Amino acid sequence: MNIGIAGLGLIGGSLALGLRAAHRVRGYDTDEATRAAATRAGIEVVARLEDLLPADAVIVATPLKSVLQTLALLSPRADRAVLLDVASVRAPVDAFARDQKDGARIVGMHPMAGRSAQGFAAADHELLRGRPFLIVPTARSDSDAMAVAGAIARDAGGVVTVLSAAEHDRIAAVLSALPLALAAALSLTAGEAVGVRLDSFAGPGFRDATRLALTAPELGEPLLSANAGHVVAALARLRETLDEVERAVAERDIAGLRELLGRAATVRRTLE
Amino acid sequence: MNIGIAGLGLIGGSLALGLRAAHRVRGYDTDEATRAAATRAGIEVVARLEDLLPADAVIVATPLKSVLQTLALLSPRADRAVLLDVASVRAPVDAFARDQKDGARIVGMHPMAGRSAQGFAAADHELLRGRPFLIVPTARSDSDAMAVAGAIARDAGGVVTVLSAAEHDRIAAVLSALPLALAAALSLTAGEAVGVRLDSFAGPGFRDATRLALTAPELGEPLLSANAGHVVAALARLRETLDEVERAVAERDIAGLRELLGRAATVRRTLE
Repeated sequence: MNIGIAGLGLIGGSLALGLRAAHRVRGYDTDEATRAAATRAGIEVVARLEDLLPADAVIVATPLKSVLQTLALLSPRADRAVLLDVASVRAPVDAFARDQKDGARIVGMHPMAGRSAQGFAAADHELLRGRPFLIVPTARSDSDAMAVAGAIARDAGGVVTVLSAAEHDRIAAVLSALPLALAAALSLTAGEAVGVRLDSFAGPGFRDATRLALTAPELGEPLLSANAGHVVAALARLRETLDEVERAVAERDIAGLRELLGRAATVRRTLE
Repeated sequence: MNIGIAGLGLIGGSLALGLRAAHRVRGYDTDEATRAAATRAGIEVVARLEDLLPADAVIVATPLKSVLQTLALLSPRADRAVLLDVASVRAPVDAFARDQKDGARIVGMHPMAGRSAQGFAAADHELLRGRPFLIVPTARSDSDAMAVAGAIARDAGGVVTVLSAAEHDRIAAVLSALPLALAAALSLTAGEAVGVRLDSFAGPGFRDATRLALTAPELGEPLLSANAGHVVAALARLRETLDEVERAVAERDIAGLRELLGRAATVRRTLE
């Protein structure tokens, strides 16, 4: 396929590096230094967003706040090209697609992948290999467009799951936003409790538990605010479970704590 | 030095493997299979706990619930040997040492290290290298015993910090118990929200944030219950910070969320 990629940051850059073995890939980024870095890495880079067209598919991999604007620019001139976007919150794209009378077909393709480093410099095809790729149809999807999304996700090394926008956002609130919120809250609590000597005390468990707190604020904030309804609901459920843990701690309920930790370990082991 | 190690699990085994280059190390474990595995790995293993004496130091690296009993067995016959224990909650050892009229000198030496795998099979000197070793004096410590603890911690590759039992337990509640409680609560919340298909959705961030939920319940439970007072206080502080995050999410307070995430990232970056 001819695949355009709009936004060559961590995810877009990794997709470009991963897809070019099997496809003709062209990339674009608003940042000149990023375009130069991608060119040096052997990516074919175009000078303007619209130069990504014509194509079989264009992947919109910009920061969340620019996704709708980029889709709006591409849609009228997309012709046969399927627009795929990696937005990590689906409701805004879902609403956008429902409002479109015509224009391009749009399918969400959200890779559950990341690292604390950002930008094309951190891009790496291995980042995506074996990761869940959540394929989310919109009002502007058809079966051919879904097949294109599925094929590209698989060629990037992803493991494909298809689900609705609402289901996606409910699950992302629990699996992406909640861990970010907890990592931030835990880091802040530790900073207050321990102060500047934190590195004299923190072991690998604390480091793992707080790694997401390294997320750049401008990338983390929309994960929380653009999905606020689901995130508040997820926090409420988390608090209920934390209440159970706290009650068992306060009562030194050894059997209760073992039971809770045992259930948690059973859930977590499904990911090993 | 002649160093005895009582308990050849993950921590005791790693200490044995790390210290034998510079010291004569003898180990003991109540479990016969563990003794055999340590012997195969070239550790000198004795048949009974008391055979670790005479020694310059004996490190008690049993599970938390057996530490006091092991100290009580070793203390009357320790002679010049300094007893070091790796207990991850200090109050019980602190009280034990205060009750001793005579007997051995006792110093806490708690390495902030771990992994989800357990036992001698998972032991590895690299586990301890560069990790914080928290040296905690007791009523039965003197300057010579503190120096022995410091030397052994350094020889095991640790980075030494000295602090009181109360300060240790307050900090461990925030840096060890709280991350465990949050990882467990997050795993349980995700298990309920997503169900058995969790591995179709979870990315690396969720995996990092919940890795501590893999902790064996019998090892995790005492981290919470034996330090209950400090853990409940730590949970209360965490909840206050989480309230701040939740308020900002509910109000879609973008500036407030960026400020919170920025402060959290600043704290966490001190560990990179």
